[in-house]
Amino acid sequence: MSETERRVAVCGFAGSLRADSYNRALLRAAVEMAPPGMEVHVFDRVGDLPLFDQDVEAEGYPEPVAALKKAILESDALLIASPEYSRSVTGVLKNALDWAARPPREPTLTGKPVAIMGASPGRFGTVNSQRTLREILRACGCQVMPRPELYVGGAHGLFDDEMRLTDEATRERLLGLLEALVEWSRG
Amino acid sequence: MSETERRVAVCGFAGSLRADSYNRALLRAAVEMAPPGMEVHVFDRVGDLPLFDQDVEAEGYPEPVAALKKAILESDALLIASPEYSRSVTGVLKNALDWAARPPREPTLTGKPVAIMGASPGRFGTVNSQRTLREILRACGCQVMPRPELYVGGAHGLFDDEMRLTDEATRERLLGLLEALVEWSRG
Amino acid sequence: MSETERRVAVCGFAGSLRADSYNRALLRAAVEMAPPGMEVHVFDRVGDLPLFDQDVEAEGYPEPVAALKKAILESDALLIASPEYSRSVTGVLKNALDWAARPPREPTLTGKPVAIMGASPGRFGTVNSQRTLREILRACGCQVMPRPELYVGGAHGLFDDEMRLTDEATRERLLGLLEALVEWSRG
Amino acid sequence: MSETERRVAVCGFAGSLRADSYNRALLRAAVEMAPPGMEVHVFDRVGDLPLFDQDVEAEGYPEPVAALKKAILESDALLIASPEYSRSVTGVLKNALDWAARPPREPTLTGKPVAIMGASPGRFGTVNSQRTLREILRACGCQVMPRPELYVGGAHGLFDDEMRLTDEATRERLLGLLEALVEWSRG
Repeated sequence: MSETERRVAVCGFAGSLRADSYNRALLRAAVEMAPPGMEVHVFDRVGDLPLFDQDVEAEGYPEPVAALKKAILESDALLIASPEYSRSVTGVLKNALDWAARPPREPTLTGKPVAIMGASPGRFGTVNSQRTLREILRACGCQVMPRPELYVGGAHGLFDDEMRLTDEATRERLLGLLEALVEWSRG
Repeated sequence: MSETERRVAVCGFAGSLRADSYNRALLRAAVEMAPPGMEVHVFDRVGDLPLFDQDVEAEGYPEPVAALKKAILESDALLIASPEYSRSVTGVLKNALDWAARPPREPTLTGKPVAIMGASPGRFGTVNSQRTLREILRACGCQVMPRPELYVGGAHGLFDDEMRLTDEATRERLLGLLEALVEWSRG
Repeated sequence: MSETERRVAVCGFAGSLRADSYNRALLRAAVEMAPPGMEVHVFDRVGDLPLFDQDVEAEGYPEPVAALKKAILESDALLIASPEYSRSVTGVLKNALDWAARPPREPTLTGKPVAIMGASPGRFGTVNSQRTLREILRACGCQVMPRPELYVGGAHGLFDDEMRLTDEATRERLLGLLEALVEWSRG
Repeated sequence: MSETERRVAVCGFAGSLRADSYNRALLRAAVEMAPPGMEVHVFDRVGDLPLFDQDVEAEGYPEPVAALKKAILESDALLIASPEYSRSVTGVLKNALDWAARPPREPTLTGKPVAIMGASPGRFGTVNSQRTLREILRACGCQVMPRPELYVGGAHGLFDDEMRLTDEATRERLLGLLEALVEWSRG
């Protein structure tokens, strides 16, 4: 990176709310490991968003929605950690995207570079959820980074008691994803 | 139906919250048109459900969640009206299913007969959303009725000013779906 | 099984053609391990089918197509071993299904009980391919057994030099699938 | 287009073989209507490809396979007309892609710009097939143009007796797709 190259500001969020979520932990690992040229800011208020309702929208965006839209707008790229419930994305995540996709979509989501990842205790590491998420993001007009892909299976063995990502192989794969996102964001 | 044959109690809900939702209107039409042998009860509190959070769940189901689970448990079958946002199910609907799928899943969703339908202003009538919904429900262990399928496109021309389904052809297709669900529920 | 209970005749086929295919080997293991009450017959001529062409069909089914349709018709259930190419089913498999789905579809595929499985060197064991296959078979009117699911990942370590399934854990999971298919076929 | 800007050479193929295929007809319309700056060459030998077989591949690509790979290699972009059988791509099309995706994938498919479209007698115009095709092409490393999308439903009323696309609205949408592909191909 040249001295003058602008840092890539990434807005990250996860699709689950519980404190010990593997996906939130994976996102925190991304914040800590962000390579030179990248900053990751977690939007940590996904749980504050109301359920999407067009009647509510008609009266103006509720404050947490406005905050989400602002966070996306001010970022160069998104990083989404997607759990898998019933072989699909969580309602929590889809609800956030339902709000984010509302007008003015441009420039909120249209053309926005996005990387996705996911962690689960099972061996598949949210492969079904990520497949669905790619389709949703494409429908939103995002530029979803095709690879590398990051499916963190067997997650219970990869984090320590304080939910820090300690598995070296997974850390390397995460770093690879982040480095690729820097390139992807710069087009 | 023989005198002694039990009526099929159907729990219906829709994946959008706004008052003038086509999908809520489609569901109301189903209530009104329920054929002999079927009763449709709308669970109208999808909008009261909190976002799914395992930490919240650990302290006991919030009252609207308990109400949803009770409504499903007491029904013989489900009827879901699925809008389409970003080519997929809404966060509102997935959030309801995320709660419904939590233990004890059996007998809440496992083996439960389900019919799905959807309406949209566009010509496809939520075909992508319903495809995704089928996968989700299968993952939940439901018995999703394969056909008939009901894709209500061009919905703005099919309901009157008070959001009553007035289009005869659509009413017939809806009736066909309901009649098939009676059979499907009796297995 | 009671003495008088009819044996379930299963028609099996795999979606790849090469001699050392893991999926063909998995199918041979199923033949060998078929539990009491089940016989598995492999339809081994998927590679003889011409590419589907409606102009050809109009002149009568080519002999291998007629043989496929007869094999399906005479079976009580299907067992399909599905490789994964480019995250989807193989052209070889879809071509066989395109022929099988042609009129008279009933009783060829409509209502036919089907179990699916798949093996691959990668860790996911054809999870994407099987997801797509389920949708295709549902569209064909089949009754696809929802579970157990069988994703045989890391296949290179599970078969011996003569492509016999030697891994005990996988053998048990395969047996579980076959036993479930007996039940599923008897409705 | 400036005088000096290179023409975009597009390789087109369709996923069905019959002479009166709507998708082949749609492709011919694309050849005829190609805007300034674009040439569309139809690869018309999809039906000559053998079923994919790794044992055959090991002995060298059969001539039609080599011809397909050459046609793709010499093109700047692909245009695929995708029929829908059983809610998915045809075996014919997937078989062609299975061959195309084999090594050396780069530069055959990796990074290749692709536009997709489809026609069917039904009202959905192959929406399910195109959704699946997008996933397959992404898995092959292609750069699939996200929009415009072209779902040609009710196809029987849009072509004349000689299978020429006569419907003006559809011609305009097709032209829009082709013009967008010129831009997409130039990155």
